[in-house]
Amino acid sequence: MTARPMAGNLLYAQSGGVTAVINASAAGVIAEARLQPERIGRVLAARNGILGVLRETLTDTATLPDADVGRLRATPAGAFGSCRFDLDPVDTNPAQYDRLFAVLAAHEIRFFLYNGGNGSMETCRQIQTAADVRGYPLTVVGVPKTVDNDIVGTDCCPGFGSAAKYLATSICEVGLDLAAMTSGAGRAFVLEVMGRNAGWLAAACALAAEDADRAPHLILLPEVGFDEAAFLARVKAVVERIGACAVVVAEGVRGPDGNVLAMQDRNQKGYIQLGGAGEVVAERIHASLGYKVHYALADYLQRSARHIASKTDTAQAFAVGKAAVRRALAGQQGVVGIARISDAPYRWRTNLSPFESVANLERSLPAEFIAADGFGVTEAFRRWCRPLISGEDWPPFRDGLPDYLHLRLPLLPARLPPYVA
Amino acid sequence: MTARPMAGNLLYAQSGGVTAVINASAAGVIAEARLQPERIGRVLAARNGILGVLRETLTDTATLPDADVGRLRATPAGAFGSCRFDLDPVDTNPAQYDRLFAVLAAHEIRFFLYNGGNGSMETCRQIQTAADVRGYPLTVVGVPKTVDNDIVGTDCCPGFGSAAKYLATSICEVGLDLAAMTSGAGRAFVLEVMGRNAGWLAAACALAAEDADRAPHLILLPEVGFDEAAFLARVKAVVERIGACAVVVAEGVRGPDGNVLAMQDRNQKGYIQLGGAGEVVAERIHASLGYKVHYALADYLQRSARHIASKTDTAQAFAVGKAAVRRALAGQQGVVGIARISDAPYRWRTNLSPFESVANLERSLPAEFIAADGFGVTEAFRRWCRPLISGEDWPPFRDGLPDYLHLRLPLLPARLPPYVA
Repeated sequence: MTARPMAGNLLYAQSGGVTAVINASAAGVIAEARLQPERIGRVLAARNGILGVLRETLTDTATLPDADVGRLRATPAGAFGSCRFDLDPVDTNPAQYDRLFAVLAAHEIRFFLYNGGNGSMETCRQIQTAADVRGYPLTVVGVPKTVDNDIVGTDCCPGFGSAAKYLATSICEVGLDLAAMTSGAGRAFVLEVMGRNAGWLAAACALAAEDADRAPHLILLPEVGFDEAAFLARVKAVVERIGACAVVVAEGVRGPDGNVLAMQDRNQKGYIQLGGAGEVVAERIHASLGYKVHYALADYLQRSARHIASKTDTAQAFAVGKAAVRRALAGQQGVVGIARISDAPYRWRTNLSPFESVANLERSLPAEFIAADGFGVTEAFRRWCRPLISGEDWPPFRDGLPDYLHLRLPLLPARLPPYVA
Repeated sequence: MTARPMAGNLLYAQSGGVTAVINASAAGVIAEARLQPERIGRVLAARNGILGVLRETLTDTATLPDADVGRLRATPAGAFGSCRFDLDPVDTNPAQYDRLFAVLAAHEIRFFLYNGGNGSMETCRQIQTAADVRGYPLTVVGVPKTVDNDIVGTDCCPGFGSAAKYLATSICEVGLDLAAMTSGAGRAFVLEVMGRNAGWLAAACALAAEDADRAPHLILLPEVGFDEAAFLARVKAVVERIGACAVVVAEGVRGPDGNVLAMQDRNQKGYIQLGGAGEVVAERIHASLGYKVHYALADYLQRSARHIASKTDTAQAFAVGKAAVRRALAGQQGVVGIARISDAPYRWRTNLSPFESVANLERSLPAEFIAADGFGVTEAFRRWCRPLISGEDWPPFRDGLPDYLHLRLPLLPARLPPYVA
């Protein structure tokens, strides 16, 4: 193995779908690096993730005043730009790696921190492996982020707690709305939330239901096949008991044919957004039971809702950023994560997992978190989830709106010829 | 005219679609009435609006501790239950009025405060007129609420400012999300918001756009016919300039045929929710320009989002409740409203309008608030709207979620036989 560098420049980049707190991780990286000026020279950030490395579109965070690092911590979405791009395997596209290391070398990068999800942790593994093979002195550390909470090796993922808090708050509020309006025929409300294969966000909505009469009354998880008859019977029972029923539907809920629920015409038109499960469920309720049905589609709102971020989540996002710098300086490659020490009081610390045990894997809800009937969660899930939405971390406001940082650092002059893919 | 009562019991009820702050008006009514014990005996509340009066499903707010009145102020949706129900004209259904006044008389009601929208102000007018004709001593005061901001006689409607703040914050956050992810082909995002005939909420989203590059880039208002070719050209221009385009669509946007934009299959199935304009616009962008398009449907979330209420709005909602009590005690029938004294600094007071000048009318965006190209708003609108979303009034939180009051006051024993419609 190549000796791990002891000092040098650090490069940070963001990848995948953004979250309300990924910039808190960026702020953690920058803040921690500024504490170590004797070992970290420049803290560069690539625009649009690994694509920005290949393109050599780099910025220098030194131009960011400390006050703006604080605002960055309270700003949602990826301030440096994100991407959805996977490196090719090194043996099929060595030129891609030649370019990558040419850029790293041109800027004397010794530490690479990549803030992303499952796919990005594979990118970390690929780069670390290639560096070791080439004898390029580099330590790569993965910084986890995803609203989907589907990264293994960590008790929870930064980004999840805030999206969960937003969604649980929203369904709590809608539940009061539904209860107020219940005066005529039966009514139902459907909220579609993110979660293609893992139902963590849908499950988190259950925190709003302190008892069986509170919304959400039913939750449809991707881990459980959609049993329409059983579902409609449950909706009917709730409406007959309390007049209205609130349902949370994960976007990835699948029917008996194994396909994600989707409106027929959408498929025919080749509509590209994965969605529609909520609308399908709303229409089935209306068509079968005759209730008045409303549905909402949170879409990007749920992953960028920094205005109602969880304080636990922002603290953890900041902490994994700081920890990644410390691990890198210690020559420890791998993926930073959160280890839970205790549920109540909730205590946690950061940990580190090998790339191989994280990259490209996906963590779905374990059986012990899913209610026996498949339409909700267990007390064990609630115990696990509750601390993750705990605490408020309001962003600063100005003129009635969040005073977010609209960052646009200038690009560093290129030291290499333009990238040709 | 019947002499106005000087003292007696007060009945309060909520009507129409709920808002994040209608309970703040209820809290204002209760708080003000508690200051006047020598003139107001009991403060009763009907369940589910005027229907609850007819059904004699009444509760006594005296059982509510002062601390809970404070929590009520910070709780969204109608804590006493709302309804969508219009009284018949008095000449076609005199029995309905006989029942109504029998209930009022049985509980010695001298003041009736109805908290609702345009239709509810007609109900107020009908009841006041019938009371005067019958010689029943009653003063009726309308308390305005609607997220749609379409009530005349008031500069703004309690409920609007908070929904506007929620939506403007949401599109601001989504704008950062879109900007972060802009790395490949063009991208667009569509947010559908409430507003069947009046585009106030869609227009309010413009407050997030401090400059032309910030979301939302285009707004489709019900006041402006949908010109698909012109719209798509504008989307294309925005995407070619900055890579992505965020569009806000009012649910009531109409095509050249005068019909609200709706997915074809929805019409065929008789799907009952007025919506779909956002989905139609998203599909047209995708089909015509080939961009990746996401859309979100805020639906009930926008009218119940008390977690990000406007402090101006909660203050005004509370104030119109208090003012309604004072007007009633002064024997002044009519609809309470908000009069603007100045824009900056923003100063306002409550006012009173005759029922006739408010009931069943609808206020849409005036021409001077709509941008010349029809795809946005003017500076005059921004100046009008900005103070309405100003200030934060966070609800209390417990265990990570808003600690809302789940009110369920016991029904008073009936003094009359059951209601037969």
